[in-house]
Amino acid sequence: MTMEITIMRNILDRNQDKAREVRELLVSKNIMMINLISSPGAGKTTLLERTLETITGRFRAAVIEGDVTTDRDARRLQRFDIPITLINTEGGCHLDSHSISRALDSFNLDELDVIFVENVGNLVCPSHFDLGETFKIAVVSTTEGDDKPAKYPMIFREAKAAILNKIDLIPYTNFSPANFMSDLRSLNSLLPLFEISCTRGDGLEEWRKWLEEQIAGRVRT
Amino acid sequence: MTMEITIMRNILDRNQDKAREVRELLVSKNIMMINLISSPGAGKTTLLERTLETITGRFRAAVIEGDVTTDRDARRLQRFDIPITLINTEGGCHLDSHSISRALDSFNLDELDVIFVENVGNLVCPSHFDLGETFKIAVVSTTEGDDKPAKYPMIFREAKAAILNKIDLIPYTNFSPANFMSDLRSLNSLLPLFEISCTRGDGLEEWRKWLEEQIAGRVRT
Repeated sequence: MTMEITIMRNILDRNQDKAREVRELLVSKNIMMINLISSPGAGKTTLLERTLETITGRFRAAVIEGDVTTDRDARRLQRFDIPITLINTEGGCHLDSHSISRALDSFNLDELDVIFVENVGNLVCPSHFDLGETFKIAVVSTTEGDDKPAKYPMIFREAKAAILNKIDLIPYTNFSPANFMSDLRSLNSLLPLFEISCTRGDGLEEWRKWLEEQIAGRVRT
Repeated sequence: MTMEITIMRNILDRNQDKAREVRELLVSKNIMMINLISSPGAGKTTLLERTLETITGRFRAAVIEGDVTTDRDARRLQRFDIPITLINTEGGCHLDSHSISRALDSFNLDELDVIFVENVGNLVCPSHFDLGETFKIAVVSTTEGDDKPAKYPMIFREAKAAILNKIDLIPYTNFSPANFMSDLRSLNSLLPLFEISCTRGDGLEEWRKWLEEQIAGRVRT
């Protein structure tokens, strides 16, 4: 096992070195990069659709779509007239900073304010890999159960904000908002949380307002 | 990247060697081991509860609970008077055959017919790691969306059967059974599929019947 730990540390170190390069490049270009992390099916792509519908009027956005295989999520975003780059990991369980660095080469970075990265659907591995992003967002849905912060704490510790999606489905599940909040707050007492329904629209205004503040706050004038 | 591929191959080879040992041991003890794989929150633990409620009358069962952290799922199963061993991966994204081998040491294998392994909630990594199980079961829930077989094909190719859980929630989502089936069948045309609601009870009889046939079919008389 010691050999594997050493190897894993090397992989993480190499990822971290490249992430540092990516972050420096983005800072120099004054671009915010946001890494969206969730389980499969929590609603990252739909959240991106709801977000791009309003944000593209104010900011110049691009998307890096991470997927194990297929271009389905990338195709869902094609109606937005923005640059989209797809990374197929071919079975790999997370994006890394090397693939992000190559994806950035496909954009004209002088014409962007914000890049959204939709990571591979996975609540575990992506939280270990710094992509050079400005910050991470944890996305979790009510139908996954109220125990996700307790069972997968890493991403809820690291994210700059969390989204609880599919709140319209709470009446049909045994999801307890009280249990969810109690576990979440014991991990990260001040994490901004947006309770959202991407289908019904609840909470989207608050999310977009916060996000636009984040992006505007870093655009140099 | 070549170094990482070589390293990954070594890790997988070492896992495969131990998986072979585990499989030989289980065959010699005439025990079936079933590896349950799904996203976080798809309902593996609830499915196990519904399954153990009836199966423990006919077969001697044990459970290996895999979790990143916490013993929550293991505690949910404590009302069943069966051996349960918890493996905390401490951030790791899947179980491997080495941890399974150690977990088996905690059981009296002469007194078991079937061992259920609840893998870490993750639809990607666990499908790459043979644990020495008799077969894998893919568990997916309707609220994750109908595109999961297309987007995460590995597990749907490898599993001996698939469970579509939370069918009671279909009316409240945009899940299309036709799209789901079409993608699933293009990957694996004859995979047994159980359409289940663990809360309402739909489909549980068919699942248990099939499962009991599998277990009975291998118990020597």
